Order: sequence, then C-alpha cells, then structure tokens
Amino acid sequence: MKKKMLPLSQVYKLLEPGPVTMVTTCFKGKANVMTMSWHMMVDFEPPILACVISDQNFTFDILKKTKECVINIPTLESAKKAVEVGNVSGGKIDKFEKFHLAQEAASQVSAPLLSDCYANLECKVIDMKMAEKYNIFILEVVKAWVRPSKKRPRTIHHCGKGVFVVDGETIKLPSKMK
Amino acid sequence: MKKKMLPLSQVYKLLEPGPVTMVTTCFKGKANVMTMSWHMMVDFEPPILACVISDQNFTFDILKKTKECVINIPTLESAKKAVEVGNVSGGKIDKFEKFHLAQEAASQVSAPLLSDCYANLECKVIDMKMAEKYNIFILEVVKAWVRPSKKRPRTIHHCGKGVFVVDGETIKLPSKMK
Repeated sequence: MKKKMLPLSQVYKLLEPGPVTMVTTCFKGKANVMTMSWHMMVDFEPPILACVISDQNFTFDILKKTKECVINIPTLESAKKAVEVGNVSGGKIDKFEKFHLAQEAASQVSAPLLSDCYANLECKVIDMKMAEKYNIFILEVVKAWVRPSKKRPRTIHHCGKGVFVVDGETIKLPSKMK
Repeated sequence: MKKKMLPLSQVYKLLEPGPVTMVTTCFKGKANVMTMSWHMMVDFEPPILACVISDQNFTFDILKKTKECVINIPTLESAKKAVEVGNVSGGKIDKFEKFHLAQEAASQVSAPLLSDCYANLECKVIDMKMAEKYNIFILEVVKAWVRPSKKRPRTIHHCGKGVFVVDGETIKLPSKMK
C-alpha cells in the first residue's frame, strides 16, 4: 500500500484513541519489532508522546542506545501478526524473517516502517529520565506516514490476555476539544 | 447502578484500551471534573498510570495541591455528558450542578466517584517530577470500582475534534501478553 506523508499536527488523532502499536527499532543493521499498548500523547505539535517499554523487553536496551524507533499502527487485518510478534523476544529470533514482515526504509531514523501497518510514526527519544524508574520514554514524532484508504481503518485495543476490542462505529459530538 | 470492588490487579484491563475518561478532583470541599484521553498504564500491580493534564486546565493546580483524583470511565451512554464537561472550565462554573452529575463518596480520596461511569479508579499522585515540563502526573490506583453489567460496556475513544470511535466487536487471539 502506497504511503502518504501526514502533517505532524495530525498525529495525535492516530494515537489518542489508544490503539495497539508495533514498535520497530534497529541496532547495528539488525531490525527488531515489539507490540506495545502503553502509550499516550503528551503534546500536539511537535507531536510528543510517552510510552512504556519494559526493561524486560529486548527493545528497551536498543531504544536506550539508538534513541530512535518507529511506532507502527496495525489494523484488524494484521492483528494476528501483531500478537504473534508480541509473543516472542527479538533476542532469540529475527522476527522480520519469522513472521514475513514487509518493511520499508524510514526517512529520519534507522528503524524500518512496517508496510502492512496503516500508519508509521518515525520517532526520536528526547527524554529518558523516567526510563530507569518507570520504563517511560518520551518520544518526538519527526515524520509521519499514512496509507490512504477509503474509510477509517479499524484498529484494535488490548483489553488484557489476548482479548482485543475492535473499532466500531464513529460518532461526532459538538466539542471544543482539539 | 450498584458498584463492586475490582481487584487492583485487573485495573490495567480498563485503561489499556485507551478510553476517554473523566477526572474528578476536590479542593476545599468543591468538586470539579474534566475529560481526559491522554493516559497510559505504567505498571500492573500496584496499578500505576501516567496522564497528561494541561497546565491550562483548572484541574492541574488542584491535582498539584491535593495529590488526589478519581479516574472515571464513561460508556457510550454518557458520551454526550463527557464531551459537555470537556467544553467548559471548572474555574467558572460548578460542573456537577450544571450537568447534573450524580456522585458518590470515594473511600480513599476526597474526589468523588461519578455514579454514571462504569468504572471509578481512586488515585493518589505519586510523582510530579514531569508535571512542570510535560504536564505528566504519575498516579497510583489505590482503590477500584466497577458497575457490574451483563456484557462489556462500550467505551469511547477520542479521534480528535469531537469525533469518537465506539467499541465494536471483541476478538480473542492466542497471546502470552498479560
């Protein structure tokens, strides 16, 4: 699916609903990926977000070293793959090979974009002060991509133990919120 | 709706999917409420979460002073109320009066529980080191309540500018995730 640049001011609309994401990293030419649900927006523009990546995860050390990652947002169609990726550690296997994950080069970071995800956010770590105590990383999105589609893609939200709620209907309410 | 205590180990299942929440606070006997979507889990047990509350919000100063709040999770049925609450500042009006919000006393904090929400999480602020720079508060959930219902209540997720995606179908995938 061909990707299109998304203005950075629009990034919060992708993450604020709380979808499951897949985080890609790259260290010494070897890419890795993990599944992540613990993230939140911190500021609109430039888009800043916070995420929790456990120090038990292979990604934790890579992120500390490289200070770069891509937050990829899968849709319902790739939910099974997102879960499989979360079931194993990249310390033992090459997940890209094992799960046949299509990738593309990012423009600002060394971590790859996942081609099957409907959005890809290239991120730089800008603050790790909370990484030791809470596993919290503060990221700035430096480039954002979306795969244009006719209607809003259905994302998934993790409710614990492999149960996911899928996006249903969309409603519009008179709001002054951004 | 009668509420039931929820084991603290189960709290992450409520917040991890990224629902819109309503944050209640209380200062010198006056309760206030705001709508909030920028939150994430940080740890399972005791349940720790992070949230972003702008220093432009009336709640910011109250939370800094009182170090207590309740995170309430509304369902689709109270979506309209959640948005209305988010459209005005508690510095000017009594939102409980204006929006006829039913409340109950919490057990561990002075902020009230919203009776029409399906879950209420009593929280203590445990870390404000990131409050100045990022508006991030770290909270510990000290008591959790749910309103039992026949099936999983449908929550709402904010996609920006008053557009909300409502919980749709639920799927189960073979996962090793907690």
